[in-house]
Amino acid sequence: MCNLSGKRILLTQADAFMGPALHQTLDQCGAVVIPDTRALDTAKAVTELLSAAGDIDVLLLNLGVPAPSTAATDVDDAEWSHLFKHLVEPLPRLARHCLPRMIERGAGKILLMGSASALRGMKRASSYSAARGAQLAWVRAVGAEMAQHNIQVNAIAQNFVDNPTYFPAQVQANPAFQARLNREVPLGRLVTAEEDALFAAYLCSDAANCFVGQVFPVCGGWVGS
Amino acid sequence: MCNLSGKRILLTQADAFMGPALHQTLDQCGAVVIPDTRALDTAKAVTELLSAAGDIDVLLLNLGVPAPSTAATDVDDAEWSHLFKHLVEPLPRLARHCLPRMIERGAGKILLMGSASALRGMKRASSYSAARGAQLAWVRAVGAEMAQHNIQVNAIAQNFVDNPTYFPAQVQANPAFQARLNREVPLGRLVTAEEDALFAAYLCSDAANCFVGQVFPVCGGWVGS
Amino acid sequence: MCNLSGKRILLTQADAFMGPALHQTLDQCGAVVIPDTRALDTAKAVTELLSAAGDIDVLLLNLGVPAPSTAATDVDDAEWSHLFKHLVEPLPRLARHCLPRMIERGAGKILLMGSASALRGMKRASSYSAARGAQLAWVRAVGAEMAQHNIQVNAIAQNFVDNPTYFPAQVQANPAFQARLNREVPLGRLVTAEEDALFAAYLCSDAANCFVGQVFPVCGGWVGS
Amino acid sequence: MCNLSGKRILLTQADAFMGPALHQTLDQCGAVVIPDTRALDTAKAVTELLSAAGDIDVLLLNLGVPAPSTAATDVDDAEWSHLFKHLVEPLPRLARHCLPRMIERGAGKILLMGSASALRGMKRASSYSAARGAQLAWVRAVGAEMAQHNIQVNAIAQNFVDNPTYFPAQVQANPAFQARLNREVPLGRLVTAEEDALFAAYLCSDAANCFVGQVFPVCGGWVGS
Repeated sequence: MCNLSGKRILLTQADAFMGPALHQTLDQCGAVVIPDTRALDTAKAVTELLSAAGDIDVLLLNLGVPAPSTAATDVDDAEWSHLFKHLVEPLPRLARHCLPRMIERGAGKILLMGSASALRGMKRASSYSAARGAQLAWVRAVGAEMAQHNIQVNAIAQNFVDNPTYFPAQVQANPAFQARLNREVPLGRLVTAEEDALFAAYLCSDAANCFVGQVFPVCGGWVGS
Repeated sequence: MCNLSGKRILLTQADAFMGPALHQTLDQCGAVVIPDTRALDTAKAVTELLSAAGDIDVLLLNLGVPAPSTAATDVDDAEWSHLFKHLVEPLPRLARHCLPRMIERGAGKILLMGSASALRGMKRASSYSAARGAQLAWVRAVGAEMAQHNIQVNAIAQNFVDNPTYFPAQVQANPAFQARLNREVPLGRLVTAEEDALFAAYLCSDAANCFVGQVFPVCGGWVGS
Repeated sequence: MCNLSGKRILLTQADAFMGPALHQTLDQCGAVVIPDTRALDTAKAVTELLSAAGDIDVLLLNLGVPAPSTAATDVDDAEWSHLFKHLVEPLPRLARHCLPRMIERGAGKILLMGSASALRGMKRASSYSAARGAQLAWVRAVGAEMAQHNIQVNAIAQNFVDNPTYFPAQVQANPAFQARLNREVPLGRLVTAEEDALFAAYLCSDAANCFVGQVFPVCGGWVGS
Repeated sequence: MCNLSGKRILLTQADAFMGPALHQTLDQCGAVVIPDTRALDTAKAVTELLSAAGDIDVLLLNLGVPAPSTAATDVDDAEWSHLFKHLVEPLPRLARHCLPRMIERGAGKILLMGSASALRGMKRASSYSAARGAQLAWVRAVGAEMAQHNIQVNAIAQNFVDNPTYFPAQVQANPAFQARLNREVPLGRLVTAEEDALFAAYLCSDAANCFVGQVFPVCGGWVGS
């Protein structure tokens, strides 16, 4: 298990998406976790979040909204803007407030919990994939730009990670679901939330200072590299 | 040169980005080009565009705005929303109006002129890369979904393509620019606008019916595959 | 259809893998095809091939051997060395004899007909994938090195392309096979040999001078990009 | 730091390439390291290695030979076969002897220390890149095949990692080298051997059971994902 002792890690939407698993694992690794649960869909929310958090070593950017399953022909502007408001628009706002302080301190990390749906096409996922694609490309660009300041910006691109929202117990109990996993996911099972969180913890640690602007698939081999 | 005779191709922003080069090449290939020059930053503009165009075989989605060069710490909400309004928000609107008719006809193509900046990190390009990343992920998802309807949705991801906007004559005349090309771009020169347009024409043709949800880098080897 | 008139294109193993489809399409595009059918598993065979061919504009490197379906635990040295002898060892020999003449003439192309099995893991394909992976990495490296000499070295990475060797009629007639295609290949059908050959022809043409060291998946969306 | 206590890890070529750094880090993580220094260029050497090692939890496949810097036109058969004999031919032999025992035990890992030169074209590196490309494609295929047996086969694809062989002190002291790093490697410095070894240790641990057939670039952002 990673040593994150003394690291101040701001965890956004700590009660959603990978939040609970991340919180628990980071705690176990000795981090000082600053969990926050507000929605970040306004500039004001972002400013207040970062003011309240104070200096942080890592921004663990866990932005989650339920992935709609909508035919590409039926995605309306409301669905689209809802996703972008929650998943994408916070990015430049966070950058404006968070990066200058990290640059000043000469160190820092942003780790984004992203989605592999941006890397491989899935049906009925055009709006969600697009928003997730904006995130990953942003990570690549900001990662390249911030590396010189000893700030590491990276992303996990996950799919098929165990999660009460996407894979509730009754879904997992369905034999057809297990058959689908065997067919589509080389791993043959869901990635556990803890495996995902442990890898995130690793990427939050000093051991991972060598990674910049990189996207790490965590999806049981569904996407390779 | 491709044979596109009889193909009705709607070319958006025909006076911007790759528009003029695309128009000329498609003409030479025998296509019936429907050039349009309106900005597509509102739902109304998209509806009017597609109503005016009538049935089309190919939507050649050439969306361009100048790429800002802004430090990640300085990207404001106005820059961000300007880019997303022009490059990203048109996508679901176009899909809603364009795809049902293509599904009905059992054939169609969307080719998006995208950017390789979404695939490889560049400094001072976070806003532009993010918008371009949304586009490519959308193409992957919609491409996977539409394939079964004999509709092919693909993208070119370009960079270092000759273009008066990005590489004006005085830039190209600068020896430092040529040195940079030699250092960063395996091809050692800019891709010509005609090379880019000819490849786009190929992807618009029936010969390319086998490509779905695919992103083709056109950037002189700056990004491989 | 591409214009390849006057282009001297040396097509290796013209009677195997994609050879017949390539030959027919290149002929239709006006190329002077030099079809050769010898195995290239010795240095002598390579030397004789290139001496006999004389000056060529394009080396269309169509190397094919049946893909074994062998468990990773059962691949023996004979299987391994057979594949590498036919698919991989010809590469440096061809380079030694073919590239200096192209450098002298200041122009030339190598297009390798490779396999997407090198890009995405498949069961019981470790030996074949490894040999195909050597090919693609070689193309990337030689492509980067030769670009400055106006020599373009690229590869197609194909899978699920119609082919009597891999997908004989009785396999295609099997409903289970069609079900598998629908499940695994976004395109929902095999890529036709002609679609593959037409794309190869495009990459052999002057229109494609802008591509260097690039790998193009042609596999119905099985691998994206 | 990872907990590898009790894990029996066979480290090949423990005195070469990343061997010394891996050995030290694995020791610190509590692993039972079985370091071996023989060349693995014959079937007999592989058999003897695995017989001597007994049951192992992880095969840490550290195969290194100096990377030749040879123009593509000058690579002779001796250079080619030397590289493939040391880097590639051991793979099926190791698989034959190592995987059946892991399958029997229902657990195991192979981690290959590979090279990012297979992922992005480099000049004068065609032979080395090709051999490294064979390795990565093999990892993808065997990883997909072995996942169902709870055996994880993955690879690190490294470049610009500090290493006395590739980057001796006098090279690093050269200001031109530092300038090149700043230009070509987003990280702006070499990855340290310890960073690379720590990541390898992570991938050897149970925490990484969710990764199968995956290639992880470790190259300071030189290759993204």
